[in-house]
Amino acid sequence: MKAVIYAPLETTVTAWVGRLRALMPDWSINALDDEIDPGSVQYAVVWRPRVGDMARFPNLKAIVSIGAGIDHVLMDTELPKHVPIIRTVGADLTQFMREYVALHVLRHHRNRPHQAAAQARSEWDAVEVAPATQRRVGVMGLGNLGAAAAQTLSGLGFQTFGWARSPREIDGVTSFAGRETFDAFLEGTEILVNLLPLTDATKGILNAETFNKLPKGACIINAARGPHLVEADLLAALESGQISQATLDVFNTEPLPSDHWFWSHPAITVTPHIASRIDAGTGSRIIAANLETFEKTGTVADVADAKRGY
Amino acid sequence: MKAVIYAPLETTVTAWVGRLRALMPDWSINALDDEIDPGSVQYAVVWRPRVGDMARFPNLKAIVSIGAGIDHVLMDTELPKHVPIIRTVGADLTQFMREYVALHVLRHHRNRPHQAAAQARSEWDAVEVAPATQRRVGVMGLGNLGAAAAQTLSGLGFQTFGWARSPREIDGVTSFAGRETFDAFLEGTEILVNLLPLTDATKGILNAETFNKLPKGACIINAARGPHLVEADLLAALESGQISQATLDVFNTEPLPSDHWFWSHPAITVTPHIASRIDAGTGSRIIAANLETFEKTGTVADVADAKRGY
Repeated sequence: MKAVIYAPLETTVTAWVGRLRALMPDWSINALDDEIDPGSVQYAVVWRPRVGDMARFPNLKAIVSIGAGIDHVLMDTELPKHVPIIRTVGADLTQFMREYVALHVLRHHRNRPHQAAAQARSEWDAVEVAPATQRRVGVMGLGNLGAAAAQTLSGLGFQTFGWARSPREIDGVTSFAGRETFDAFLEGTEILVNLLPLTDATKGILNAETFNKLPKGACIINAARGPHLVEADLLAALESGQISQATLDVFNTEPLPSDHWFWSHPAITVTPHIASRIDAGTGSRIIAANLETFEKTGTVADVADAKRGY
Repeated sequence: MKAVIYAPLETTVTAWVGRLRALMPDWSINALDDEIDPGSVQYAVVWRPRVGDMARFPNLKAIVSIGAGIDHVLMDTELPKHVPIIRTVGADLTQFMREYVALHVLRHHRNRPHQAAAQARSEWDAVEVAPATQRRVGVMGLGNLGAAAAQTLSGLGFQTFGWARSPREIDGVTSFAGRETFDAFLEGTEILVNLLPLTDATKGILNAETFNKLPKGACIINAARGPHLVEADLLAALESGQISQATLDVFNTEPLPSDHWFWSHPAITVTPHIASRIDAGTGSRIIAANLETFEKTGTVADVADAKRGY
C-alpha cells in the first residue's frame, strides 16, 4: 500500500490532500497530522519540512518538493541522504516568474519609483529614458525559471545577458558560464535579476563585491532566496548610490518581520514572496504524474541533484 | 530653394533644427521665429502648430507631424486642406510604447497598486492572482503602435484581443473590426488599453457605456489622447467599482494642472505623457529621409489620411 504524506507549514494542506486524493484514487494520501504508521509511508510531498520529519519514515522512496527549489528540503539536518528529491516545475511556475521579472525589470527601466513619487507631489516630471534596446540586463541562474525570464526580457527588446554554472544556449540571450566569467557578465549590467538556486556556492552572492562590479546606479531584483543577499551590503550600496533601487521578493525570515528596514526604505520594493507560485490545481497534476511515473519506473526527469543543491 | 520650418511649442526646437541641418546640408532649415519669407517655405515640420501658422505659407508642399498622430495638426482650424500630412513613425516610438503597455498591463495584472499600499503599511499581503494565460486583455487601435503592443502582450502570455476600424491580422491576437463588433471585443476584457487615433469617431470612446460593457473591476490604460476619455464617467466608474484602476498618460490639458483630481485619486496612476516619444536622433533621421523622398517622388509611405484623421 502506497502512502503519501504532507508536511508543509502552510494552511493549505487540506486543499492539496483533497486534490491528490481525487487524482490518485489508488493511493492512500494523508496529511502529516493524520494518525499514520511511519513504516507505511513511501512518498513525502513537502514544503519546508521540519527537521527530523523525513527521518521518521524508514521506507521512504522519494521526497517531492512543492516547488522548483530543494533548498528548503536540504535544510533538514536529519534528512535521509539516500532518498531522491523530486522538484516540481510546471508551466504556471514559469509563467508567473516571467511576468514578475518582466514587470519589475520594466519598472526599474522606466523609473516607476521616480514617477510614483512625482505623482504624489502632483508634479509633471517627464524624465526621459533610453529604449530597452539600449539597456543591458542580466539574469543570474538559467534553469527553467531563469531561462524563461531571460527569453522574455529579450523579447521585450532588452540587451539580455545570462550567467549560469554551465553553458546554456538561449535564443536572444548572451550567456556566460562559470565563476571565471562572472565579472564579464556583471560589467555594464544595469538591471541584475537573481534566479539562482540557493547552494553553498551561491549563498551571499548579492554582496558588496558583486554590487561594485555593476555600473553605478544599477538596480537589483532578488526573486530567488533571501540568503542570496547580504543585507548590510545592500544598505551600504544604496547609501553610496552604487545601487539605486532594489526589488526583493524573498527574505531570510518570511513573512518579513514588520520592523525590518526593508519595508520603509524609499529605494526598496518589497513583494511578499509572490514572484511565482505553484497553483494547487496545476501543481497537484504535476506531482501526481511524477509520483505515478516514479512508482512505475523508479525515476523521473525532475529528480534533483542533492549534492549540487538543485 | 527648399525650406523647412519648425513650429513646435517645445523648447527643443533648436536641437531638431541642428540635427536636420546636419542631415540635410542642401536644404535651408529654419526655426519658425527666424526671419523667413513665407513664400519660400515648402515644408513645415510641426508639433502642435498654432492656428493659422500653416495658412501663412502659400507654397507648402507637405506638413510633417513629429509623431504618429496627426490630430494636433488637424486642430488648426485654418489648416490648408490640400497639403498632405506626413506621420513620423520610427522603431523607437514603437519600442517605447510596447514597453509602456507591457509595464502597465503587468502592473494591473499583478496588482502592484495593492502591493505598494501593503508595503506602505509594512504588511505581508500575498494576494494570489491568476497567470496571464487566464487574463483577457484588449487593445483598441491596431496601427503601428497598437499592433506592436498587442503582440507584446500576447508574447507575455496574455489572452490578447484587438479592435480596430478595419480587419488586421496579428500573430497571437484575436482581432475584431468595426463598430458592430465593439461589444464582443469589450466583453470579458479585464484590462483595456486605448491606442486609437483621435478622430470624431473615437473622441470620448472611454465613457460610461464602454466601461459598463467590461467585467466589473476592469482596469483601463489610456496612452492615446486625453479627449478619448470622459473624465466624469471615469470618476463615477471608479466610485461604483465598475473600473478598479486606471493608468493615464495623456490629458485634455498637458502638463496636467496640479489641482486636477487625477493626481491624488488612489485608483489612478498618472504618467506625464511618457508612454512613447520620438527621440530627436532617430526622429530627425526618419524625417530627413521622408522629406528627401517626398521632394523626389511627390509622396511617401507615411502620408496620413486627413479625412480619416490618422
